Amino acid sequence: MIVVMKVGTPESEIDRLSAEFKANGLSPEKIVGKHKTVVGLVGDTVDMDALQLQDWSPWIEQVLRVEKPYKRVSREYRQGEPSEVVVSTPNGPVTFSATAPLVVVAGPCSVENEAMIIETARRVKAAGAKFLRGGAYKPRTSPYAFQGHGESALGLLAAAKAATGLGIITEVMDAADLEKICEVTDIVQIGARNMHNFSLLKKVGAQDKPILLKRGMSATIEEWLMAAEYILAAGNSNVILCERGIRTFDNQYARNTLDLSAIPVLRSLTHLPIMIDPSHGTGKSEYVPAMAMAAIAGGTDSLMIEVHPNPSKALSDGPQSLTPDRFDRLMQELAVIGKAVGRWETQPMPVLV
Amino acid sequence: MIVVMKVGTPESEIDRLSAEFKANGLSPEKIVGKHKTVVGLVGDTVDMDALQLQDWSPWIEQVLRVEKPYKRVSREYRQGEPSEVVVSTPNGPVTFSATAPLVVVAGPCSVENEAMIIETARRVKAAGAKFLRGGAYKPRTSPYAFQGHGESALGLLAAAKAATGLGIITEVMDAADLEKICEVTDIVQIGARNMHNFSLLKKVGAQDKPILLKRGMSATIEEWLMAAEYILAAGNSNVILCERGIRTFDNQYARNTLDLSAIPVLRSLTHLPIMIDPSHGTGKSEYVPAMAMAAIAGGTDSLMIEVHPNPSKALSDGPQSLTPDRFDRLMQELAVIGKAVGRWETQPMPVLV
Amino acid sequence: MIVVMKVGTPESEIDRLSAEFKANGLSPEKIVGKHKTVVGLVGDTVDMDALQLQDWSPWIEQVLRVEKPYKRVSREYRQGEPSEVVVSTPNGPVTFSATAPLVVVAGPCSVENEAMIIETARRVKAAGAKFLRGGAYKPRTSPYAFQGHGESALGLLAAAKAATGLGIITEVMDAADLEKICEVTDIVQIGARNMHNFSLLKKVGAQDKPILLKRGMSATIEEWLMAAEYILAAGNSNVILCERGIRTFDNQYARNTLDLSAIPVLRSLTHLPIMIDPSHGTGKSEYVPAMAMAAIAGGTDSLMIEVHPNPSKALSDGPQSLTPDRFDRLMQELAVIGKAVGRWETQPMPVLV
Amino acid sequence: MIVVMKVGTPESEIDRLSAEFKANGLSPEKIVGKHKTVVGLVGDTVDMDALQLQDWSPWIEQVLRVEKPYKRVSREYRQGEPSEVVVSTPNGPVTFSATAPLVVVAGPCSVENEAMIIETARRVKAAGAKFLRGGAYKPRTSPYAFQGHGESALGLLAAAKAATGLGIITEVMDAADLEKICEVTDIVQIGARNMHNFSLLKKVGAQDKPILLKRGMSATIEEWLMAAEYILAAGNSNVILCERGIRTFDNQYARNTLDLSAIPVLRSLTHLPIMIDPSHGTGKSEYVPAMAMAAIAGGTDSLMIEVHPNPSKALSDGPQSLTPDRFDRLMQELAVIGKAVGRWETQPMPVLV
Repeated sequence: MIVVMKVGTPESEIDRLSAEFKANGLSPEKIVGKHKTVVGLVGDTVDMDALQLQDWSPWIEQVLRVEKPYKRVSREYRQGEPSEVVVSTPNGPVTFSATAPLVVVAGPCSVENEAMIIETARRVKAAGAKFLRGGAYKPRTSPYAFQGHGESALGLLAAAKAATGLGIITEVMDAADLEKICEVTDIVQIGARNMHNFSLLKKVGAQDKPILLKRGMSATIEEWLMAAEYILAAGNSNVILCERGIRTFDNQYARNTLDLSAIPVLRSLTHLPIMIDPSHGTGKSEYVPAMAMAAIAGGTDSLMIEVHPNPSKALSDGPQSLTPDRFDRLMQELAVIGKAVGRWETQPMPVLV
Repeated sequence: MIVVMKVGTPESEIDRLSAEFKANGLSPEKIVGKHKTVVGLVGDTVDMDALQLQDWSPWIEQVLRVEKPYKRVSREYRQGEPSEVVVSTPNGPVTFSATAPLVVVAGPCSVENEAMIIETARRVKAAGAKFLRGGAYKPRTSPYAFQGHGESALGLLAAAKAATGLGIITEVMDAADLEKICEVTDIVQIGARNMHNFSLLKKVGAQDKPILLKRGMSATIEEWLMAAEYILAAGNSNVILCERGIRTFDNQYARNTLDLSAIPVLRSLTHLPIMIDPSHGTGKSEYVPAMAMAAIAGGTDSLMIEVHPNPSKALSDGPQSLTPDRFDRLMQELAVIGKAVGRWETQPMPVLV
Repeated sequence: MIVVMKVGTPESEIDRLSAEFKANGLSPEKIVGKHKTVVGLVGDTVDMDALQLQDWSPWIEQVLRVEKPYKRVSREYRQGEPSEVVVSTPNGPVTFSATAPLVVVAGPCSVENEAMIIETARRVKAAGAKFLRGGAYKPRTSPYAFQGHGESALGLLAAAKAATGLGIITEVMDAADLEKICEVTDIVQIGARNMHNFSLLKKVGAQDKPILLKRGMSATIEEWLMAAEYILAAGNSNVILCERGIRTFDNQYARNTLDLSAIPVLRSLTHLPIMIDPSHGTGKSEYVPAMAMAAIAGGTDSLMIEVHPNPSKALSDGPQSLTPDRFDRLMQELAVIGKAVGRWETQPMPVLV
Repeated sequence: MIVVMKVGTPESEIDRLSAEFKANGLSPEKIVGKHKTVVGLVGDTVDMDALQLQDWSPWIEQVLRVEKPYKRVSREYRQGEPSEVVVSTPNGPVTFSATAPLVVVAGPCSVENEAMIIETARRVKAAGAKFLRGGAYKPRTSPYAFQGHGESALGLLAAAKAATGLGIITEVMDAADLEKICEVTDIVQIGARNMHNFSLLKKVGAQDKPILLKRGMSATIEEWLMAAEYILAAGNSNVILCERGIRTFDNQYARNTLDLSAIPVLRSLTHLPIMIDPSHGTGKSEYVPAMAMAAIAGGTDSLMIEVHPNPSKALSDGPQSLTPDRFDRLMQELAVIGKAVGRWETQPMPVLV
């Protein structure tokens, strides 16, 4: 860390502060500038809070962090090697990683009834998806809007899994539901609105299922990585990072701004695998194909696409869902890009008997 | 609601859709424009989701909401009368309302130890505060930063309450802690990061303590009101809305952008009382006095100010905390504005014997 | 337009307003709702200002635009046909259009000296670029930073053009320089900071050279299209829209947020060709290749890439520039994606003799 | 400046770079940390560009600015003394400064005709305003919207000045109009959309009339100060900074977010006087009084308020304009706050004979 002192700081204050730094196991080194003095702190400062450090003296103008505040999620933590999140599904293990083929996750926003979820599962599996997404518990802006079918929807996801062998991804909103969700799901999703729900992060970090961590709608890349650090620090290192659109000044045509530049930025900072959700990211089904193709060319490890057998009758998020027919076509379009960048799986998965 | 149809929509589709609206208890009325047709929906649409409605036909271009999506928090719900949130404290009842004198809440970010919390409580009470704030459970960006003393801090808040008669405000991050928090606190705070934690909103709405609902750091005014609507819909109408700074493109000097225009906007939309937190809102103690004065002149019903006996040693948020001496002076400065706008209490509170 | 009246508007006021609308050539149609009355305006309202309309009565709550505010730039204006901006260069005409192969523009941020600009031009031409970019007049945040070599740099661009036959793109900041810029350049660039400089838009609209209109750093898609509308309304329909990164709450790793979702959004709204600038869009050369590939897969018609023979010595924007060697490799990577989506030119351009 | 080197930088590269710094007149000092080495640069770095510096070595990870990038506008430049911008008007000199009474500027968005501008001038003068604002050249999003009456409006402003003795403030959009604008106006306004029009900044800096510099709608405080630095560096030190609302994620109820925290932030950074425009800042007349009062309590030196004799018939920005009657009342309300903070002028101005 670099501690910048205010103009006019008395020498004695710098000495006092230096002594205090030493007492805390840090080695301060002083640079006397033309106008200002700065103190460089050598030592392990990764666990320190820059803002807190600022409180040590009223003469401190600014504390600049040189070391990154995260450790376990950093690329350096694995000596630059991307991690592999291997998820077992009835159809066999699926690997999310920069070193593995692209994984496609598809399904409806909400689980509505048995017929729709099983039909959707069959269709997305046939088109090449490896996971079925579907919400049992839904975060909705309005208390009067459909909140998900809850526990009964979990049963329907289990039925779809049994029928197709697909892995399941569903969201947890309340730690009290975690145990029963984990009986069914293969990956536990933390939604954008709960990315900063630290109690929940600690609890999902203390269990074994892999976690899909969506980016908060106004979370910086660094805050997002720190949320992942909570999960890794609690003991679970199987985390997938999912960009799903951020909030900017413009939401007139696209509902959010899908931040595809998160792909190369994350790649340079972390070993964790990356997923892109162009359905929530744009909020309009007509923009989904272009953004899905862009995401693959940009280097994503995984895609999450909303598919609904009848978007115009969906209980939630219909406008951003593709029909199964459109999804079939999209998978063919994606294959062209996926093959061009060498991320398309050529071997068929083992079939569930 | 106003349903705008795409250019070229077939007459038959408009008829089909109109029939469907009627079947759902709405009275559609059609306006045929030069290029487009729009359908006005008459009836109770407050519980409807505009985005969902859009799914009813691929020919719908846009659904424009004319009615507001919230009901119980709206000014109209109380015929324009501001509500009064009356909180009982050992020193007597305190009213948060547009019709009541300004209420000042003060105290440290975190409860650190018995001496500091009791000293702070005594000092802020002497200066005129009616409530003591202090965090037992702290939401921190880093898993390695101080997370609050938890349950033991609740005991210290109880001691400070016994010593001074001040009301207590503290934050709940996990519904599992709600019961023990409610044994001590007089107002339960939902922090900015949990404003969209709908599970938690439902749970605090199902109990009796008044709620301080902080605005999410990128929540629109409407989303914030919808979060309050969750609490009212669950049965608890004692909600205070607290603006604490929003996230914008600039955080170089002030940590957040304190949105004081929320005051007149909320006043025109809701009957709920308003609190401003200039300490988190700016993140720097030197900006707090100007913004506290501005908030009173702008019409706030309440202020939350961070005070710490020794900001440079605070375990969290020191840079935005005032010393007790500076807070004494601030209260005198605030009194000048408070009196000018007729919101300063002239009668001393009954003393706790 | 849809005019929403406040609750309780007297019948007589609605009648008065309706008469006024009729007097202005509009056909008002009234829908009486349960709580509110709305008035639909039929007629040509494209030139009307929604905010201004609101002033016609204090009883108006909201004016909702149903027609889009732009006309000449809209997709409908050309019956859904994309326009073709054909630019003549010494090497032959180059077409920017959704119907044409991808066009690559490359070159340094600023023109520094004859050797560097000619070397860069040769290298980017050899790699497949059709246009050379290079700033003579540079908008810089600091008055003390390098402001471009101005008129002498124009001479160097002319020399580079003569040496290579490439088309030239350079920025105009001041209308007083327009004439001499147009003697050299083939496309006139309006930079992000001048997107809302309406005087300049009118002036470049009144001359013949094609215009590259960069998106303002916090301009909505609609404002950007309205800026283009200024140019078309002034008589020049050869406009290319260039996305170059928008300003959001996060600029820690990438300098801006490159909004690739602008591609499908613009495609659905306008006939104008689209360019993506991943160099300014991310601000870091290491992120440029991933975003350039993503842009092609997402459907861009053109790319602008910063290339500098020695980025570490660039007078401006070095951190986002590629070396000529890296650019050579990038063009090969781009070709893979370009061919996959059928947008890569297979025929070599006619060579300048 | 602090130069942070990447992990693993060879010693020889640090030596090479240090030599280069020395060759450029800087004194580098090296701190060797546990993981990283940083180099502190001592010397006059105010004119250096941090991004550019980064190009000096591919081993540089980050360049952190410790010195501020502005000089002439900084508080330190005047040893902490606020500057006084004294403007001569027919009614006598008016001082904008932190040391002077509050100055109120009022008037319509656009100059529409002689009767309206003179009536408005008389009314706002009677209520206590010292300056009349009124647009002759109007920046409008749509090329089809009213663009201001231009030169003829300047004549009407001159007539209003002759009739009342008020100072005049009007906007320049095009340097070609500057001379004729300066024949009439007492303060030249640079609008938000031109804050980054560096050509125009240089030109207004090279003439004598005081400048009102509005903040760009997404300009950081630092960029805004750098825009002012352009004017001061060109020779004109009479600059007033006007906050007029910034663009955030929420514009549903208030059109912009009025950033009142700019007041204490600017006060701590610059000697220049501050103006707040709550009319553009909120976009709705009903929010103007609360925000005007808040601005005074927060410490503004000046206010700009839109007043129109008949807002419902205004050619632009009617929804945010007050009637003269409402403005009369507002001035009485403002006087209460202004007197409370000791910024209300008690002596009447010398009358124009």
